Amino acid sequence: MITFEINKKDGSARTGCISTSRGIINTPAFIPVGTNATVKAMDQHELKELGTEIILSNTYHLYLRPGHETIKTLGGLHKFMNWHGPVLTDSGGFQVFSLSPLRKINGDGVTFRSHLDGSTHFLTPELVMDIQAALGSDIVMAFDECTPYPASREYALKSLELTTGWAKRCFEARKSDQALFGIVQGGTYIDLRKQSAEALIELGFDGYALGGLSVGEPKELMYEMVNYITPLMPEKKPRYLMGIGDLLDVLEAVSAGIDMFDCVMPTRNARNGTLFTSRGRISIKREEFKTDTNPLDPDCNCHTCKNYSKAYLRHLFTNREILSMRLNTLHNLYFYLDFFIKMREAIKKGEFRKFRKEQTLILQNNFNEG
Amino acid sequence: MITFEINKKDGSARTGCISTSRGIINTPAFIPVGTNATVKAMDQHELKELGTEIILSNTYHLYLRPGHETIKTLGGLHKFMNWHGPVLTDSGGFQVFSLSPLRKINGDGVTFRSHLDGSTHFLTPELVMDIQAALGSDIVMAFDECTPYPASREYALKSLELTTGWAKRCFEARKSDQALFGIVQGGTYIDLRKQSAEALIELGFDGYALGGLSVGEPKELMYEMVNYITPLMPEKKPRYLMGIGDLLDVLEAVSAGIDMFDCVMPTRNARNGTLFTSRGRISIKREEFKTDTNPLDPDCNCHTCKNYSKAYLRHLFTNREILSMRLNTLHNLYFYLDFFIKMREAIKKGEFRKFRKEQTLILQNNFNEG
Repeated sequence: MITFEINKKDGSARTGCISTSRGIINTPAFIPVGTNATVKAMDQHELKELGTEIILSNTYHLYLRPGHETIKTLGGLHKFMNWHGPVLTDSGGFQVFSLSPLRKINGDGVTFRSHLDGSTHFLTPELVMDIQAALGSDIVMAFDECTPYPASREYALKSLELTTGWAKRCFEARKSDQALFGIVQGGTYIDLRKQSAEALIELGFDGYALGGLSVGEPKELMYEMVNYITPLMPEKKPRYLMGIGDLLDVLEAVSAGIDMFDCVMPTRNARNGTLFTSRGRISIKREEFKTDTNPLDPDCNCHTCKNYSKAYLRHLFTNREILSMRLNTLHNLYFYLDFFIKMREAIKKGEFRKFRKEQTLILQNNFNEG
Repeated sequence: MITFEINKKDGSARTGCISTSRGIINTPAFIPVGTNATVKAMDQHELKELGTEIILSNTYHLYLRPGHETIKTLGGLHKFMNWHGPVLTDSGGFQVFSLSPLRKINGDGVTFRSHLDGSTHFLTPELVMDIQAALGSDIVMAFDECTPYPASREYALKSLELTTGWAKRCFEARKSDQALFGIVQGGTYIDLRKQSAEALIELGFDGYALGGLSVGEPKELMYEMVNYITPLMPEKKPRYLMGIGDLLDVLEAVSAGIDMFDCVMPTRNARNGTLFTSRGRISIKREEFKTDTNPLDPDCNCHTCKNYSKAYLRHLFTNREILSMRLNTLHNLYFYLDFFIKMREAIKKGEFRKFRKEQTLILQNNFNEG
């Protein structure tokens, strides 16, 4: 179980903390993604040193490999990966719809094919709850259909009804004392989103997530949804915007009252050589860095910036060296976690608006150092 | 410059230390390979924590990318990669002959094509010395032709004469106070090897290397060469067996009086999932490890063994996760460096023979835990 406390509000933005038996998560919180029970390129001791307070792992991936029963036998996900802080697992819904070469929904669940070996599987809300119980996650997500974009109103309605029905079944199938979050769907239809939220609230989850956003819709539409739905989500429960991590979007969502975010952006971008700095984004492969002895970000205190030059990082990236992915990931995660610390401080001081304005200018500096 | 001191002999095996301005190298020494100015998957602080006393980097690779002039501009290799212990650079000879799709020798040097972009380059002994001076390595190697196996006596003779001529030119081209080692060639012809060694000794290098071994010849032939040539190399100078790292071969060579080894074996094997343990070699992908909560090696004190189970390591390897390569590499390097510590202790105690006998039994346990 979790408890959630809001310490300070600044407009609709709020800062607080989620308490779990494995530790506290300060909100707004950024959750690094550890798909296969590893945050790509990181060692668990580094995650800890970075100040990571919670990680996300993927139900779909762990169910397929090594299998939730295997992880259960091994003492659960925390012991398996030697990460003893809080873990949130997603429902697998997003992956079933984005990774599987085949999926077929019937009332009971979804038949899909593994993207790994083509084997056929049948996922139900009850199984998803079983899997997450076997993993032993601290926060588990109800099984949902991630409504694609674009979707007709008719499809979005059917999809949200499916998700609502599954949410009920997840609620009833809950056996352990894991915190369970419901996921609001409804595509880009405001009334459907509202209908979804209300149905979930009636059940009474431990937290509420916004799903099915940042799936191809225009930014304005996403912002419209976030701004409309967030206030409808219970004030006293954590609010989680799933899969979103562009920091401009984060600022918008925090301003609307969102508390939690997960995204592969810092880690995936790192592996692709895109690095976040206090002056804007940088592509480390740029020729101009070839003889640049400066750190990536002179204002950054991360291991990468304290020990290596842009010239060396460029060299490692050019050679596709593993150390490149390590150092880049470490830096980007440090940047993200630090950004969230600063954001929380700004909210505490009642200066979120100012913080947002300043950061927006910097974040728009893409691939420019100026 | 370096100085070399032998502290103890046990038969022909010896232990001592090479002193450089950047630190001491205890011998027999294992030199991890950092081809592109990075020991693959490792961070420099990890190399230090592992007790690494010297690393090797590749002249050929750094010449092509990022270029030795670039590294010189950046303050030399040590500063570039933030590794402040001793560095040995090879001559590039081995890579020109093993990686380049085209090579043409004339008296002055070798024309070759880059394996990276097909561009044509001309490497001479003088250029090789210039490159290594620009890199600022502590120990540099004379340019040599790595005689292939099999090679006719005629070819091997011509090749060794070439290498001898180049060695002289390297000797004369030496400008800095870097230690310069000559490389004994001569294929598998004992008299030619002797001729090569004698010619190099006449010049008076700071150390002597045995090259062109472990290039496809039968083990017995390699052992014959090592046992024949090593005693011909000056007693008071470091003796270096290039590119060899199978620990059974290491035991044979140390027993013959070799002091230094470099090899990609621990790091490359790690990335391929082959791990060294105090009970023999293990392939981490084996099905039986799927639910094995034990560490890789219960007797090992490395970070990997102290923090992760075989089940987790297998899972990471199966998913080709970066953390797999990191943890495996860390472990294998720890194992190698520890093996060398134990070997030095055994020599100090006059127990090398016993050590070799015991270790040989274990090392023959390939892919078996029994």
